[in-house]
Amino acid sequence: MIVLDLMGIIGTVAFALAGALTGIKKKLDVFGVIMLAITTATGGGILRDLLIGNSPPFALRDPTFVLISIVTALASCFVYHQITRFNYFILICDAIGLGAFTAGGANMAIMQDHNTLFIMIVLGVTTGVGGGVLRDLFVQEIPFVFRKEIYAVAAIVGAACFYYTQSALPEPVPMYSCFVVTVVIRVLSIVYDLNLPVV
Amino acid sequence: MIVLDLMGIIGTVAFALAGALTGIKKKLDVFGVIMLAITTATGGGILRDLLIGNSPPFALRDPTFVLISIVTALASCFVYHQITRFNYFILICDAIGLGAFTAGGANMAIMQDHNTLFIMIVLGVTTGVGGGVLRDLFVQEIPFVFRKEIYAVAAIVGAACFYYTQSALPEPVPMYSCFVVTVVIRVLSIVYDLNLPVV
Amino acid sequence: MIVLDLMGIIGTVAFALAGALTGIKKKLDVFGVIMLAITTATGGGILRDLLIGNSPPFALRDPTFVLISIVTALASCFVYHQITRFNYFILICDAIGLGAFTAGGANMAIMQDHNTLFIMIVLGVTTGVGGGVLRDLFVQEIPFVFRKEIYAVAAIVGAACFYYTQSALPEPVPMYSCFVVTVVIRVLSIVYDLNLPVV
Repeated sequence: MIVLDLMGIIGTVAFALAGALTGIKKKLDVFGVIMLAITTATGGGILRDLLIGNSPPFALRDPTFVLISIVTALASCFVYHQITRFNYFILICDAIGLGAFTAGGANMAIMQDHNTLFIMIVLGVTTGVGGGVLRDLFVQEIPFVFRKEIYAVAAIVGAACFYYTQSALPEPVPMYSCFVVTVVIRVLSIVYDLNLPVV
Repeated sequence: MIVLDLMGIIGTVAFALAGALTGIKKKLDVFGVIMLAITTATGGGILRDLLIGNSPPFALRDPTFVLISIVTALASCFVYHQITRFNYFILICDAIGLGAFTAGGANMAIMQDHNTLFIMIVLGVTTGVGGGVLRDLFVQEIPFVFRKEIYAVAAIVGAACFYYTQSALPEPVPMYSCFVVTVVIRVLSIVYDLNLPVV
Repeated sequence: MIVLDLMGIIGTVAFALAGALTGIKKKLDVFGVIMLAITTATGGGILRDLLIGNSPPFALRDPTFVLISIVTALASCFVYHQITRFNYFILICDAIGLGAFTAGGANMAIMQDHNTLFIMIVLGVTTGVGGGVLRDLFVQEIPFVFRKEIYAVAAIVGAACFYYTQSALPEPVPMYSCFVVTVVIRVLSIVYDLNLPVV
């Protein structure tokens, strides 16, 4: 688990960074920037916990991820001009976060005895993309997962991979396969600029 | 119940169609169109289940309605240009969906022993209009129930009718009366273009 | 408690008024104005109840606050032109509401045996500002707590004050200190037009 915990922390930092940068661009005040960072980093997990009746949500019981988000947001306020040079690096961190959060969400389905393919996908995707959806709603943009690139699709394929390798492979290999598959699909779609068709 | 189940399926198709058409108009990619269809069709029921602590929500335990939404969304991508000719037909299907979802939501209040007038109205309206509200939020429009026509009002009157006929009439007559009243009010407001006043 | 109940009612009226005025400005119909008033007045408490698994939410079990919101919304439709003269007065009532709702939300953390500093702040702030955030989302504006003035910060300091005075002072002094601190900070920020810095 320790590798995935580390990935989760990398993901939290990347998600919080994405939220903070969005807030700075939208001219929010410092509090707004911090709130948007927290929302992006913890929103997916909170939505997942609401769906499965896990209350209070994990992010409220353990303030670690909120604290990481606050520190990331404050740091990004100071180094804003430098940070935009590392867009590509941030996208890769974000992909790692997507993989870690999706794997964690799908794993939660198993831990709560809801291990059907459908619920694993729903909880994996909700955890992976929910924070970004809330962030976009707060700053009045159509959520990017509805518009751009292969993002949620990577999470869906990853969660499905988790489900189908579950019976064949010993723990925690299926969870790691979910993480790896999600990250690889997401990174490939960034590198080759792959998009889904528009009708 | 079988008639209302059928109405629920018609409603799911109509709601998913409304969501998919909105997504196509807003130039979302295929995944976005599907997600918006699912949101519109299942969002009301999910919000209702969150309010009454019914977890995981019914739409997650039984994937039928999500599958119907996906199929509807994919189909509407192919026949998009033809479908806009049937606007009136879609509005009628949507009214049937509103009635079926409202009746189902209000009935849930009784099944969970919350059969006060107030909770029956809240759960009926939430189930009936919640999906459309979420859809409008996602595509950055002020939810249409706040702006247009007699929509939520039909659901409120229907749910109130359910409550008041409950003691007088045998099951499942009150639930069907809710369905019929909601649909009739909604259809009349479409046919005669009735609107609520603006201050 | 009776003083805080009274403050809660003043707050509900002020929040409902803010919601109704927003709805009138945005040209919503009468139903939309009422819904926005209810959302603003009860949304924070409903979000808090969802987070702590308190279902159905308090606002659904006791319709008093919804009824107060409806009456306030209808009244504000009639006296709309007069009411805008009392902007300053409404801001003060809103500050009282923020204090009362924050104190109530933080107190809920204690009643549910979650009395850590972190959860008291989260529940206090959610209850105090959640309704306004939902209102702004519904009318397609970036939530004002992300953009303007010292608002959520007043709630955070108030909830922290509750936590730190808890062990030293007898009940219900800590709760009232939360109320007073929140209101004073908020009113001072209005009077002296204090804002948080933008990056």
